[in-house]
Amino acid sequence: MQILSVDIERTMDKAIGDCGMTQELMDALAPKLEEARVAVMRAAGSGWLEWTDLPSADPSQFLDYAKEVRPHIDAVVVIGIGGSALGTTALATALLPFYYNERSRQDRGGNPKLYVLDNVDPDETFDLLSRLDLKRTLVNVISKSGTTGESMSSYLVFRQRLEALAGREKLKDLLVFTTDPSEGVLRKLGASLGVRMFDVPAGVGGRFSVLSAVGLLPAALVGMDVEELLRGAQEMESWIASAEGWDNPACLFAGIQYLNDTAFGRGISVMMPYSARLRDVADWFRQLWAESLGKAVNRQGETVNVGPLPVKSLGVTDQHSQLQLYSEGPDDKIITFLGVKEFQNDLTIPAPDAEAAALSYLAGHTIGELMWAEQKGTAWALAERGHPSVTITLDRVDAYHVGALLYMLEMATAISGELYDIDAFNQPGVELSKKATYALMGRPGYEDLAGRIG
Amino acid sequence: MQILSVDIERTMDKAIGDCGMTQELMDALAPKLEEARVAVMRAAGSGWLEWTDLPSADPSQFLDYAKEVRPHIDAVVVIGIGGSALGTTALATALLPFYYNERSRQDRGGNPKLYVLDNVDPDETFDLLSRLDLKRTLVNVISKSGTTGESMSSYLVFRQRLEALAGREKLKDLLVFTTDPSEGVLRKLGASLGVRMFDVPAGVGGRFSVLSAVGLLPAALVGMDVEELLRGAQEMESWIASAEGWDNPACLFAGIQYLNDTAFGRGISVMMPYSARLRDVADWFRQLWAESLGKAVNRQGETVNVGPLPVKSLGVTDQHSQLQLYSEGPDDKIITFLGVKEFQNDLTIPAPDAEAAALSYLAGHTIGELMWAEQKGTAWALAERGHPSVTITLDRVDAYHVGALLYMLEMATAISGELYDIDAFNQPGVELSKKATYALMGRPGYEDLAGRIG
Repeated sequence: MQILSVDIERTMDKAIGDCGMTQELMDALAPKLEEARVAVMRAAGSGWLEWTDLPSADPSQFLDYAKEVRPHIDAVVVIGIGGSALGTTALATALLPFYYNERSRQDRGGNPKLYVLDNVDPDETFDLLSRLDLKRTLVNVISKSGTTGESMSSYLVFRQRLEALAGREKLKDLLVFTTDPSEGVLRKLGASLGVRMFDVPAGVGGRFSVLSAVGLLPAALVGMDVEELLRGAQEMESWIASAEGWDNPACLFAGIQYLNDTAFGRGISVMMPYSARLRDVADWFRQLWAESLGKAVNRQGETVNVGPLPVKSLGVTDQHSQLQLYSEGPDDKIITFLGVKEFQNDLTIPAPDAEAAALSYLAGHTIGELMWAEQKGTAWALAERGHPSVTITLDRVDAYHVGALLYMLEMATAISGELYDIDAFNQPGVELSKKATYALMGRPGYEDLAGRIG
Repeated sequence: MQILSVDIERTMDKAIGDCGMTQELMDALAPKLEEARVAVMRAAGSGWLEWTDLPSADPSQFLDYAKEVRPHIDAVVVIGIGGSALGTTALATALLPFYYNERSRQDRGGNPKLYVLDNVDPDETFDLLSRLDLKRTLVNVISKSGTTGESMSSYLVFRQRLEALAGREKLKDLLVFTTDPSEGVLRKLGASLGVRMFDVPAGVGGRFSVLSAVGLLPAALVGMDVEELLRGAQEMESWIASAEGWDNPACLFAGIQYLNDTAFGRGISVMMPYSARLRDVADWFRQLWAESLGKAVNRQGETVNVGPLPVKSLGVTDQHSQLQLYSEGPDDKIITFLGVKEFQNDLTIPAPDAEAAALSYLAGHTIGELMWAEQKGTAWALAERGHPSVTITLDRVDAYHVGALLYMLEMATAISGELYDIDAFNQPGVELSKKATYALMGRPGYEDLAGRIG
């Protein structure tokens, strides 16, 4: 019994017809796929693949710190953007109860509220500040480089208020930084103020950092089961280390996505969870996949301009929004359904009044059965139209299974980088926009550029 | 001074180079574009274009009802899916303060909380039910047909609990239905229970219903300025009625999107607001655009399988997630930036400590200026890479401007339907999935299908 299943049956020609995957195509890719896996396993733990060491790291520093500070705080504010925020949001949506911040402390299991400030919207920032009792709020500033303009702006705004309220000496009790172990502005600021700091290891990029302090510190602070998260990731790691090629879940996911993009022109990859808890896993995946695989040049420096577009969708809700297009529009998409076998609390649908006899078919079923039937029915209906889908199924949404899912998708991303023959760990395409922002904000050294932008 | 601006400069060859829009292409489309506008204006108010009458309708029925019930309720729950939910969510995110449901009643302006249940996730439904004081909750069930399986399941679950709590006689005080004026199960149920009902006019499809009772009743219940919403839509309506072809904002948006899809192969349309308040306008647009334009056949019945993919993005957050792909990946996307000139509450960025001198360029600017610079810088950087973007700018995010924006996008959708020569108002592609769900749920008459799905 595996920790999750990856089912590609509804990508195959047998299921969807002429525009489906063939055994021949899969056989032809098999050697390259296994080479890709071996290359990733060989590089694991070094260079930009240091994140493969995270599942087996000891989380006690996070748990101890959380235990120490929890009595003193009512809320945690994570200030971070991109990979410094998306993992925490994915974990929060998946593992905290719905409406978490609206609940009483008791109803939150004695844990603080959690806010993730991942934008520089002034209205959002203002409204958040006005909600908080800052003397009982822990602000976790996350920036590996320590120079991320958006997060550091938010930090400066928060810091001014914290200092006005508590004085410079007490700042260290209200702040915690997650940053590079030795380099950068945030590290220096933390040292000067005596702020507690946690490390983002050098070879862990933002989008692969969810199982580092970036994701695990907030997780520990709100009482998530960090050990189970890591145990799930470890179990997935063992599976990926031991299964070859198409028998490997990360290879299977990566290989099918790659072939659908390159051999069938399906460059749009929709992730559609049938569990509202998993909706932000799809958003986290969006960064992982887009930023890793969207590249102008391959590793030989040749221009390729590749990269599938990851799209976040949500079942069943988006059946009433996107399904019409998926069903009748261009055949340029592959859907990944994320299903769960068991919900935490299911509800039985009661029988309708006589006037509503047309709804009788629903009665006696649970809401969860309806969700499951819609997922299955939609996958079938898409296949009837010739559209492929992959189905990833978890027994339930808990820390153990979510840890496994995230790690599987990270490994699938690294393997995909090998298949596309690109560097999955850089992001050169965002530099020009950063420079343009510097120029427009009047940063010294960018005067010429400011003139060009106009 | 117009109510909003639509700027296409950064789609043009002058701005983005060889793969940019040319004046010749625009001139060639001009007659067809104006014909499309005239066709829509001629059909306005009839058939499936009855939604064009909504801006000038009298909203006093919503306001009066809201005034009557507001003292008796602490929360409104909207049960609806797709077009019955997305408009309300878009309005709520845009026009209510952030963290609305976490605020005290006083801090909500004396208005009830608002929950939109747009899915059949059992955990979400269970957690919502456990949050509510059902005796002081108004449940607004929205289904035009009255047979939407998901919403009616949620209704049955809620109704059982309401009846157990308050008795059948009192159900009418805790429910309000929004449905077809004369047909359907929900209409019959409402009549039998004596529930107050509001109409979805016959010629208003779900995705064009935000300015009907579907959106305006919840809006009125939580104290939004419904009259200003309609006034903005009316002003946009007048503009669209009086400006021809490329001078018309809805035509301009529709025409540029259409040409980028059909002449340049840019079938992905990203909407990227630089205001967190507008994030769910992008989600609402996602349904509007996908379900209206994603069609298998044209109006001559020929197979076309058209439809651009609308993608929801968010500035600046997604610069740290999607921009790498937009910048370096395939040239198959057109970005629409939604910008606002003025935020409600701006915040000045304080000067950093000496250790963080690298951040000095931020000091003295406001957070809103940073947001604006990032938007401008990103549009420029994408153009440098040859990628087109449209910029829609509002003075501020308020009911008046949001009403205008939504109406402009609805009209642009109808005009696009003419350009693609498809029926923008049906959704035949979702039927097979519905039938499959019926079959899997054991609905009589679908036994054969159940066997095929397996």
